[in-house]
Amino acid sequence: MSADLPRRLVAEALGTAMLVAAVIGSGIMADRLTHDVALALLCNTLPTGAILVVLITILGPISGAHFNPAVTLVFGLRHQIARDMALTYVAAQLAGGILGTLVAHAMFDMPLVSLSTTVRSGSGLWIAEAVATFGLVFTILAGLRFRADAIPWLVGLYIVAAYWFTASTSFANPAVAVARALSNTFAGIRPLDVPAFVAAQLAGALVAMKLAGWLLAEPQALAKVEPAE
Amino acid sequence: MSADLPRRLVAEALGTAMLVAAVIGSGIMADRLTHDVALALLCNTLPTGAILVVLITILGPISGAHFNPAVTLVFGLRHQIARDMALTYVAAQLAGGILGTLVAHAMFDMPLVSLSTTVRSGSGLWIAEAVATFGLVFTILAGLRFRADAIPWLVGLYIVAAYWFTASTSFANPAVAVARALSNTFAGIRPLDVPAFVAAQLAGALVAMKLAGWLLAEPQALAKVEPAE
Amino acid sequence: MSADLPRRLVAEALGTAMLVAAVIGSGIMADRLTHDVALALLCNTLPTGAILVVLITILGPISGAHFNPAVTLVFGLRHQIARDMALTYVAAQLAGGILGTLVAHAMFDMPLVSLSTTVRSGSGLWIAEAVATFGLVFTILAGLRFRADAIPWLVGLYIVAAYWFTASTSFANPAVAVARALSNTFAGIRPLDVPAFVAAQLAGALVAMKLAGWLLAEPQALAKVEPAE
Amino acid sequence: MSADLPRRLVAEALGTAMLVAAVIGSGIMADRLTHDVALALLCNTLPTGAILVVLITILGPISGAHFNPAVTLVFGLRHQIARDMALTYVAAQLAGGILGTLVAHAMFDMPLVSLSTTVRSGSGLWIAEAVATFGLVFTILAGLRFRADAIPWLVGLYIVAAYWFTASTSFANPAVAVARALSNTFAGIRPLDVPAFVAAQLAGALVAMKLAGWLLAEPQALAKVEPAE
Repeated sequence: MSADLPRRLVAEALGTAMLVAAVIGSGIMADRLTHDVALALLCNTLPTGAILVVLITILGPISGAHFNPAVTLVFGLRHQIARDMALTYVAAQLAGGILGTLVAHAMFDMPLVSLSTTVRSGSGLWIAEAVATFGLVFTILAGLRFRADAIPWLVGLYIVAAYWFTASTSFANPAVAVARALSNTFAGIRPLDVPAFVAAQLAGALVAMKLAGWLLAEPQALAKVEPAE
Repeated sequence: MSADLPRRLVAEALGTAMLVAAVIGSGIMADRLTHDVALALLCNTLPTGAILVVLITILGPISGAHFNPAVTLVFGLRHQIARDMALTYVAAQLAGGILGTLVAHAMFDMPLVSLSTTVRSGSGLWIAEAVATFGLVFTILAGLRFRADAIPWLVGLYIVAAYWFTASTSFANPAVAVARALSNTFAGIRPLDVPAFVAAQLAGALVAMKLAGWLLAEPQALAKVEPAE
Repeated sequence: MSADLPRRLVAEALGTAMLVAAVIGSGIMADRLTHDVALALLCNTLPTGAILVVLITILGPISGAHFNPAVTLVFGLRHQIARDMALTYVAAQLAGGILGTLVAHAMFDMPLVSLSTTVRSGSGLWIAEAVATFGLVFTILAGLRFRADAIPWLVGLYIVAAYWFTASTSFANPAVAVARALSNTFAGIRPLDVPAFVAAQLAGALVAMKLAGWLLAEPQALAKVEPAE
Repeated sequence: MSADLPRRLVAEALGTAMLVAAVIGSGIMADRLTHDVALALLCNTLPTGAILVVLITILGPISGAHFNPAVTLVFGLRHQIARDMALTYVAAQLAGGILGTLVAHAMFDMPLVSLSTTVRSGSGLWIAEAVATFGLVFTILAGLRFRADAIPWLVGLYIVAAYWFTASTSFANPAVAVARALSNTFAGIRPLDVPAFVAAQLAGALVAMKLAGWLLAEPQALAKVEPAE
């Protein structure tokens, strides 16, 4: 049911843009309306989870709905997407993410770009990003294995949980992290802190891929040698 | 499975009435019970999303569950509803929406109609309404294309997200906007501000229709010329 | 897939008991933990909606999961349940509801029964109860007609919405109203106010049944005479 | 679709670890961000329910997704899991739960283990734990009987409700109770109070098993003698 490359790339860019607009926009809205930070984070969490269910359902049939370079990397390493296409996916995700930031700012009458000054650094947060992305990638791979139709819900619900149980509020996505660096608002991250977040995310993604390769092996394969991933 | 015209119109009016009653009623309830505006908006958001899932599921088989002139316009332009029927749908939606306002006010012991004094104007909000309706219409069209059974959930979840990530709290519906102008409560909008909201909504709807015409084209059509919408 | 009478009655009693325990218990918990009444009501709403999805799913195949005399009345009038069985259902619902109150109080170390002193009276609230029960019964009948497998979700989501958009927080259930009269806590209702609530609920239920009889008529019936309900 | 023993045990340990990390991590996050205890509990509830839906969906096909010694005990007594395997399941659950505590603490830059000082004791709480586990086990058994594909949602929604309507916030899981004893944070429990909680949980589980054995009997069995459980 997948589409040709231009449609795929537009789908990846559109999806990442709407995801980022939801993350940043709901953060701005919540931050303006309350002084309670937990409430603001809850009002950031639920829209993010909700839009993920929607976007993955409606764009998945076109591009696979990665919206996330860490996910594209894993599919590339698993030979489920060609290397060239993977690179264009990542470019579309980055461009879409930045577009999402611009749209969010435009809606809230803010300067279109403002570098974040929110420090997000330290070993706890890096562990958190690795855990968050581990869980996200494992959820996707296990969902594909057992209940592909449920993946939009699985990802949306996983992120709702991960917002709260990871100390970093679960960025878990290099393209989103870059886009959030361009927004000095509730959901922002200081550009200086992005590389370590991305490194932790990729590390978590690779561990998930490795674990999934073993844990989710086809039943018929279990009696044979370990399948190459 | 669709019904005859009187049943269709009653379904459109009933659905729009219950949607508006939910939007305005939950806004009144929330506003009375808390001083925290983010919490009030959350308690306005969740009932709206929940009732949308219900109403689209139970009335969709009768009328298609548009409840929204922007949606009916798009289906009209796509020749999926006849022009005459589209006009009667819009009339039913407007009448139903106003009925919903009256019912909400009656339940909360308020005057049945009170013109809103809440100013909602400015380029940010207009962009927001265009974005909100773009997303809503695109979600519906893509849902119809790929997962028609999931549309109630997709619309409910989309609106939950859009309440927060669009600066305007996502009216995204001309009939609901008119009905909300008649309620000087949490969810109200000054009548003077309605026309610009409606214009922005229709613009967003048309862009979504255009994009969907290309992005969601049937796979078999991809190798041929672009299909006429 | 339905069971024999003893199992049916136990299912009705158990379901109503758990529903009431959820309504009253979550009300007590929320009321103890916050001074914000909107937040308390939200923390009363979400558990109620959640447990309804669960209870209707797991007990529906046994008894039909009415848990509500207004629903049983409607099915009786539609000849979908025998008069004698309907009466035993209502008795089981009332007994189960009271048991739910006792269990909730026992868990929270309160006297097992305490008559509520919360005044809930007035034409607004009576309209609200009629609207709430109208919506509930119409949702159930339309759900049965078009998407029977979705009814647990439809009812749970409807109640989540109705808690907020009806001024009465949507009791919509005579057995639950009686049970709540025995609890002088957040979810309570003064016993004196119960009869008017019940009358309004039954009125709303009957209007919903009447409307559903026309609006949800089978397509093949549309060209013929109106089917008797 | 079930896997070999090592994969099963890893699935049980991983699932329990992520469940505990979600419970404890979201408790820490919520507690840090707000002074409103009801809001903190809500921000503890929703991530727990969400992650349960995810974990049961993605790990259920491997191990059955018990994550809970009370559940494993019931399946053992019903001869649905061999005694030896049941014991290794419980060990994996306990080890996974403790790992989850460690990971949560690491993410939030806290000492890896800290014995809880939160007193949770008294007959009300014990009744609550029995009720909570009764409901959980009955939900699982009835779900297996009627709607096995819905079990992830049923369990997640049940726990969302039970967090609020049981006075104890529904631990309902011996392995999670042990893991929470090692965390002196929002979700903690004094180690001294764990044994009574576990006893109440097992009592509730056994009552649910007994009731389910009668109430959920196969229809064809109803005319015959009562099936042995």
